[in-house]
Amino acid sequence: MSRFMSARFSSLEEYVPGEQPRDMQYVKLNTNESPFPPSKEVIDAINLEEVSKLNLYPDPTAKGLKERLAARYGFGVENIFVSNGSDDILNFAFMAFCDKNCGVAYPKISYGFYEVYAALYSIDAKEIALKEDFSIDIRDYFNAGRTIVIANPNAPTGLLLSKEDIKKILDANKDNIVLIDEAYIDFGGESCVELVHEYDNLLVVRTFSKSRCLAGARLGFAIASKELIQDLEKIKFSTNPYNINRISLLAGEAAIDSDSYYFDRAKEIMAAREFTVTELKKRGFTMTDSYANFIFAKHNKICGEEIYLKLKSRGVLVRHFSKTEITEYNRITIGTKEQMQVLINAIDDILEKKGCAK
Amino acid sequence: MSRFMSARFSSLEEYVPGEQPRDMQYVKLNTNESPFPPSKEVIDAINLEEVSKLNLYPDPTAKGLKERLAARYGFGVENIFVSNGSDDILNFAFMAFCDKNCGVAYPKISYGFYEVYAALYSIDAKEIALKEDFSIDIRDYFNAGRTIVIANPNAPTGLLLSKEDIKKILDANKDNIVLIDEAYIDFGGESCVELVHEYDNLLVVRTFSKSRCLAGARLGFAIASKELIQDLEKIKFSTNPYNINRISLLAGEAAIDSDSYYFDRAKEIMAAREFTVTELKKRGFTMTDSYANFIFAKHNKICGEEIYLKLKSRGVLVRHFSKTEITEYNRITIGTKEQMQVLINAIDDILEKKGCAK
Repeated sequence: MSRFMSARFSSLEEYVPGEQPRDMQYVKLNTNESPFPPSKEVIDAINLEEVSKLNLYPDPTAKGLKERLAARYGFGVENIFVSNGSDDILNFAFMAFCDKNCGVAYPKISYGFYEVYAALYSIDAKEIALKEDFSIDIRDYFNAGRTIVIANPNAPTGLLLSKEDIKKILDANKDNIVLIDEAYIDFGGESCVELVHEYDNLLVVRTFSKSRCLAGARLGFAIASKELIQDLEKIKFSTNPYNINRISLLAGEAAIDSDSYYFDRAKEIMAAREFTVTELKKRGFTMTDSYANFIFAKHNKICGEEIYLKLKSRGVLVRHFSKTEITEYNRITIGTKEQMQVLINAIDDILEKKGCAK
Repeated sequence: MSRFMSARFSSLEEYVPGEQPRDMQYVKLNTNESPFPPSKEVIDAINLEEVSKLNLYPDPTAKGLKERLAARYGFGVENIFVSNGSDDILNFAFMAFCDKNCGVAYPKISYGFYEVYAALYSIDAKEIALKEDFSIDIRDYFNAGRTIVIANPNAPTGLLLSKEDIKKILDANKDNIVLIDEAYIDFGGESCVELVHEYDNLLVVRTFSKSRCLAGARLGFAIASKELIQDLEKIKFSTNPYNINRISLLAGEAAIDSDSYYFDRAKEIMAAREFTVTELKKRGFTMTDSYANFIFAKHNKICGEEIYLKLKSRGVLVRHFSKTEITEYNRITIGTKEQMQVLINAIDDILEKKGCAK
């Protein structure tokens, strides 16, 4: 830290993204990317004519993309916010809906960025422990008296809350924002987005990075009441109005126009997930019941870090976290069935060398 | 504003970007975009192979782009920061280097976003008046006791401070950050970037949006001491680590690789600026001595707003500001010589209809 930086950041610890190694061809199962390219429509949309127009600013209102999202999810454009990845939206939401009078509550084991945002803005954060089985007890969130942030499915557990559970949390917090981060909802979960029609305190955050195969384009969106969307727009236009580039806007529009492609890819991932779960169970792993494009797995004999390191040395990257409660686990992104077979083969090799083959 | 938004934003007024109309073909001279497409190298870089990889996250460290910028400007990669447009960097700098103990000072007439950032973060802002001729009196910035932000050339005046002047400001503020926003430096000004070798309190902010014809890609960069760059990285990795998409990273790299193309385009714009200045002077306009890709002009008989509106009705968009001190002026982006001829023709028509033709 330089001698010029504000002292309020002296103990701030930034988020650490998953490794993005350049040195070797890994089977990359560590950052929950889709293994599939974007749709043909997306690829066609990024054409010579459009690239030649990069000298011009993008539309800061993102009208075309908002119209498509509104039609797709059954809302008006005034209910849609789009931004530079869903992290951007989470950041804006922590700024807008938390302050020294309003803290935040989120599950202690969840997306690691929530605690970073809380620290960044000096927000009082209540980290609520999960149950023994890593599930969320919704009663812990009743009458919280603070902004609530829940990833659904949760990460890195993959566990899902039902729409009815979310409704109960909303009912028990009518005077506070309930932010539901649905980054992974398209892999078997039921979205709570329809509840936006009923609840003015619900903010649903989504991303194009996972099911829509556009992590590299940086696109997120949110659905909420007109008033909440206006609040987010105010923050966006007070920080970086042109925060989505021209190409990503085009990619997002074409992705919505070709939604059936993504629906089919999500089904493939869900099938590969089922395959992987079955195979890993045979090999002494236990897993949470994941509704996401990753699984959260531990072995009954080998510790989490050892599995992570041995997979890495065999060219397979998974994500290991050092938090005590979950250090025996690894989060494994679901790729293609072929990639998951490579993982299984690597696991077999590890188990054999350890003398604990099936 | 919703009932949930933090009260600290109750009087926040967001930035208003220049109009981006979709309804009609304007000659768009209102947002200081380049009239030229990106280089062939940039267009070639955004190819089918790269677009097909949009399912993967971009490199959050932007290594390739940083390496090219470091080589281009004669620094190490540790002296380079890149982000989602220079607004993003300004935002981070206001966060990092201002707080309740350290205010900010900037010229009262300058880039309108500085006051928005100050308001957003509740920073004590000292807005320093320009001299009668719109120039900056550097002595007003000596021993400021706060972070200093100066656009050089300034906007919307286009007036330039010399490197020697910047050095004097740096010498007189050794314990405070001096941020020099060089968005428009490539149109005839001399960059102060070399002073980074001497001053640990200098932060130079640049953009790919103007001289490098990439406003639509959203890319900005900063050059400063290693420590200041680390501070900015800390903010970036605590808000949105993947804030530059894959395509814009590629475009930025290819743009640096083809810098001579942009140098030639800047020369064309400077020639068109000279042409426009000469023609407007003949028609009763006075202008500041602009070193940017825009001019700042007022007519001796017709008020600023009237010229703006009458140009708009003739299909030529320029930027008019309502601030009292500059309301007689319009900021006119320099496009191609052909576009500037269209502007001149429209002006001739306006003057003729008003009975004040030359």
